[in-house]
Amino acid sequence: MIKSIEWTGESLKIIDQTRIPHKILYKELRQIQEVYEAIRKLEVRGAPAIGVAAAFGLYLGLKSETFTTSQDVISRAGQLAEYLSEARPTAVNLRWAISSVMDRISHLVEEPEVMVHKFLEAAIEIQEDDKERCRRIGESGAGLIESGMTVLTHCNTGALATAGIGTAFGVLYTAHLQGKKFEVMVDETRPLLQGARLTMWELKQAEIPATLITDSMAAYAMQQRKIDLVMVGADRIAGNGDVANKVGTYNLAVAADFHRIPFYVAAPLSTFDFSLTSGENIPIEERDPSEVTHIGDELLITIPDANSWNPAFDVTPFRLISGIITENGIITPPFEKSIQHLIHHTYQN
Amino acid sequence: MIKSIEWTGESLKIIDQTRIPHKILYKELRQIQEVYEAIRKLEVRGAPAIGVAAAFGLYLGLKSETFTTSQDVISRAGQLAEYLSEARPTAVNLRWAISSVMDRISHLVEEPEVMVHKFLEAAIEIQEDDKERCRRIGESGAGLIESGMTVLTHCNTGALATAGIGTAFGVLYTAHLQGKKFEVMVDETRPLLQGARLTMWELKQAEIPATLITDSMAAYAMQQRKIDLVMVGADRIAGNGDVANKVGTYNLAVAADFHRIPFYVAAPLSTFDFSLTSGENIPIEERDPSEVTHIGDELLITIPDANSWNPAFDVTPFRLISGIITENGIITPPFEKSIQHLIHHTYQN
Repeated sequence: MIKSIEWTGESLKIIDQTRIPHKILYKELRQIQEVYEAIRKLEVRGAPAIGVAAAFGLYLGLKSETFTTSQDVISRAGQLAEYLSEARPTAVNLRWAISSVMDRISHLVEEPEVMVHKFLEAAIEIQEDDKERCRRIGESGAGLIESGMTVLTHCNTGALATAGIGTAFGVLYTAHLQGKKFEVMVDETRPLLQGARLTMWELKQAEIPATLITDSMAAYAMQQRKIDLVMVGADRIAGNGDVANKVGTYNLAVAADFHRIPFYVAAPLSTFDFSLTSGENIPIEERDPSEVTHIGDELLITIPDANSWNPAFDVTPFRLISGIITENGIITPPFEKSIQHLIHHTYQN
Repeated sequence: MIKSIEWTGESLKIIDQTRIPHKILYKELRQIQEVYEAIRKLEVRGAPAIGVAAAFGLYLGLKSETFTTSQDVISRAGQLAEYLSEARPTAVNLRWAISSVMDRISHLVEEPEVMVHKFLEAAIEIQEDDKERCRRIGESGAGLIESGMTVLTHCNTGALATAGIGTAFGVLYTAHLQGKKFEVMVDETRPLLQGARLTMWELKQAEIPATLITDSMAAYAMQQRKIDLVMVGADRIAGNGDVANKVGTYNLAVAADFHRIPFYVAAPLSTFDFSLTSGENIPIEERDPSEVTHIGDELLITIPDANSWNPAFDVTPFRLISGIITENGIITPPFEKSIQHLIHHTYQN
C-alpha cells in the first residue's frame, strides 16, 4: 500500500494527490506554511490524512523557532494550531488531531527543546494510531461485503486519504483480503474527480475489479439493480449521526433510500463532533468556483465567466444511513443512543 | 436565436455542437452518410433536431441517385430511412420524422424527380412544424415559471436541440420574454457536458441568469432550498408517461420527489411512442466507454484502461413526473388517461 504521508526524520514527505494518476510526484514539506498550503490545495487530502499532516505541521512550525520556557512553547503551539485549523473548515479530524496533540503535551513542564520534541512524538503516535484505526474499521465492516456483490463508492477513502488502508476503502480491502469476490462501482466525483483519479488507481493496485461511472449514473445503476450496497467515508459526523462528506454523497443517500439499498459510512471515531447536535451546524467549505467551470487547472468546460457554485461537501441526514462503521464496531440506528453508548464505552476503556 | 440546422438550397448547414462554446464551427453536409455521422457523433443532437436533420438526410440520399419509377423512389427511401434510424437508438423523434415524411409521400405517383423533390418539401415542413411546436410548448409551460424562482435543468433542450426555441429551454425562454425574473441552475451533464457547454451558452445569449453546478450537487441544492422547479426534455415517452432522457434525469427525478419539488418534462408529441406501454421497453443507447474515462477526445481523467459504463439515457417512471408540457397543453397524472385523451384530441383535429 502506498504511503500518502511519511516522516523522513526532518521533513514530511507527501505524494501530491492532485497529480495522480498521471504523475506520481513526491514533495518534501519542511515548513508549517508548506503543510498548510498542501492541505488547502488538496495535495494532501482525506479527513484522517489531513489530521496526521497537520500534527506534523505543528511540529515543523515549532521546530523553526526558539523558546525560553515550556509555557512559551504551548502558547505558540496554540497559535499555530489555530492557523492550521483554518486550512479546511469541514473535516473535523484536522482539529481533532491538533487538539489531541495539544492535550497530550499542554500539561507538561520540560525544557523547551524537549517540549518541542514531544510534538514530533505525538504526531508519530497520531499516525500510528490512524493506521491501527483503519485496520479495525476494515475488520468491523468487512462482514457487510459478500461475494457476488457490487458496492458503489464515492470520492477517495483509501491509503491516500488516511495513514493506513483507508476507511470505506479499508472495508473493501479487508473483505478482498478475506477472499471475497465482489466488484466496485466508482463515482467519478466531480469537480475534482477523486473517484476517477484516486479510487480507480487504488482499486487497480489492490486488484479489485472496478467500473467507473459519472456521478449522474448512480441512481440509474441502482434502478437497474447493479448496486447492492453503498459505502462512503465521512469528514464530520454530528452527535445525531448526520454525516458531512464529499459533495454528491447526499445525492447517493437519497437514491439508495429510494431503492432500499443499504447505505454505510465508514469513519474513525475522531470524525465525530459531539459538540454538534445535528448536521445543520457543520460548516460547509465552499471552494473556488473555477473547480466547477474547469477540469484540472486548465480546461474550461463552459462559457468564459460562467457563474458557478462549488460546495465541497454536503450533509446526509442520519435517517438515510443504515450504519456507521467505526474502529469500535458498527453503529446502527437509533444513532443518538448508539453514539452515546459508544462514547461511554470508549471513555471507559 | 442560433439556428442549429439550416437548409442552404443544396446542403444541410449545421453548427458542430461538439465544439461549442470553444468554437462556433459550421459544417455543410451534402451526403446522407455525412448526416448519419453528424447525428451519431452528436454534432447534431437533441431529439427534435436529429429528426429534422434525418429528414433532410433522406432527401440528400435520394437526390444523389437516379430512379425510373415513383415506386423505385419509395422503395429506396425505405432503405435509407432504415439506415438513418440506426444512428441513435433511443430518441424516437428521429424515427417519427422519417415515418412522417414517408407517410406524406409513399401514396403519391409522380415523376421520379418530382417524387424526390417532395422529400425536400417534407423535410422543410418538418423543420417549420418543429419550430411552431416549440413555440407552442413554450406558451403551454411558461405559466409554471414565476418571478423569484430558481429552475434546475439538465442537458440541453434549446435552439441547438430543436428547429425552434427549444423544449424545456423554450419554456424558460418564453417566460423570460414575458418579463419574469427567475434564475436557472444548470447541471453540467457528464459525460458530454451539454449543460456546461451548450445550455450555459444559450442562457447567456438569452440573458437569463444561470449558475453551473456538477451533477452531484443537485440533491444538495434541493436540500438547501435553492431549487423551486425541475424542467427537462425527453428523448422518448412511453404510453404510460415513463420518460427516457439524458442520463442523470432519473437521478434528478428521485431527488426532486424526495424534496417534493415539482418535476416537469417538456417535449413535442412526436416524442411519444404509443407502441410502448412502459419505459422498460425503451432501448437505451450505450455509448463508447471512453466518453466516461475522458473529457472531450483527449483528456484522460482516470487510470489507463479503466473499465467504465456509459448509458447515454435513463428512464424516469411516470410516478416521479408532475407533468409533461406539450404543444397541446400540459399533461398531468394519471398519464395513461391523459395521454389517451390527448391522442384522441390530436387525431380529431
